Amino acid sequence: MSDLQNGLRRGRGRRPAEAVRAAALAAAGEMLFESGLAGLTFDKIAQRAGVSKMTLYKWWPSPGALAFEAYSAAVEHRLAFEDTGDIERDLRSQLHSFVRLLTADRGGPVIAALVGAAQHDPDLAAVLAEQYTVPRRTLAVERLRRAQRAGQIAPDVDLEVIIDQLWGACYHRLLMPAEPLTLHFVDALLRNLLRGIAQA
Amino acid sequence: MSDLQNGLRRGRGRRPAEAVRAAALAAAGEMLFESGLAGLTFDKIAQRAGVSKMTLYKWWPSPGALAFEAYSAAVEHRLAFEDTGDIERDLRSQLHSFVRLLTADRGGPVIAALVGAAQHDPDLAAVLAEQYTVPRRTLAVERLRRAQRAGQIAPDVDLEVIIDQLWGACYHRLLMPAEPLTLHFVDALLRNLLRGIAQA
Repeated sequence: MSDLQNGLRRGRGRRPAEAVRAAALAAAGEMLFESGLAGLTFDKIAQRAGVSKMTLYKWWPSPGALAFEAYSAAVEHRLAFEDTGDIERDLRSQLHSFVRLLTADRGGPVIAALVGAAQHDPDLAAVLAEQYTVPRRTLAVERLRRAQRAGQIAPDVDLEVIIDQLWGACYHRLLMPAEPLTLHFVDALLRNLLRGIAQA
Repeated sequence: MSDLQNGLRRGRGRRPAEAVRAAALAAAGEMLFESGLAGLTFDKIAQRAGVSKMTLYKWWPSPGALAFEAYSAAVEHRLAFEDTGDIERDLRSQLHSFVRLLTADRGGPVIAALVGAAQHDPDLAAVLAEQYTVPRRTLAVERLRRAQRAGQIAPDVDLEVIIDQLWGACYHRLLMPAEPLTLHFVDALLRNLLRGIAQA
């Protein structure tokens, strides 16, 4: 371990703000995937990250909000959007990654717990909307808009509505479980929406 | 008031089980719409309904489970499924009622709180699935199957997937709010799914 790393680990007072922030996010993310959202407190996160509880209070309105930012950072690279020029292929590939995340060991329970808790935690709800729901919708709509300009999606289609009929449909199977959330389901979502379900 | 009604109201020991059950459901439903799910306890429900707390414990695993059954009973008639023979018309009419309920004074917050609480209350989750999610899906699939047999929906379409792309899309806007949940949105959901979004 380098002197620099030693300094970052041991000399709490000297760590730059970004390093402290990263340590808090890493600790919260680990704890979230280890044991879920229930019981996650600023005390426990501060202890694991080696930062002061006051620092956490200064940056995040609630442990749920901090946990959500940690989750969001942890999964961001897995939810990237490709642009191969073929919208059906890119949607399928992104949605397959998304469903794999939701059905992974702790991915599904963690996101379900976060969305569940947001229903009675306005601070968490605000962070969820600002840092996850809205930016993820924006990324998808940007990709869909390029497809619409390229003539792959009909010009009169409201692109925001597509988000709810693909990703929203997956969240529905996660949060109100009844039928399985599978890659086969994703393929059916895409087929229905792209071609239409009405008898030709 | 008839003697029978008097008897039902006053003589607790004499009320038939069904009347006690109905009183508990009515009280829980009123309290749910008045002040939400948080703070709803068997104690408070028992007091308002004039029934014993032991009775409530005997019939429902948790106050959340009782509240959900009350909600479900209260909204059932508003979510009925018509069959005029025209699937597009019947879906539009049912989904308009559904969205009106979700955007009514307390309808949306109550269902959001119940689905939210179900993410960390396995008893409530079981009741939600058995008494709401599954039976409501079944009703919709039955109507869709008649449409498929009548040649209005393509024969290879998985009808369960349609549920997630219509009602699930509405729950997505309720539980992960970003874009408005309106009747206009419902019309766009139906247009997209029936005709398809791909450029013809």
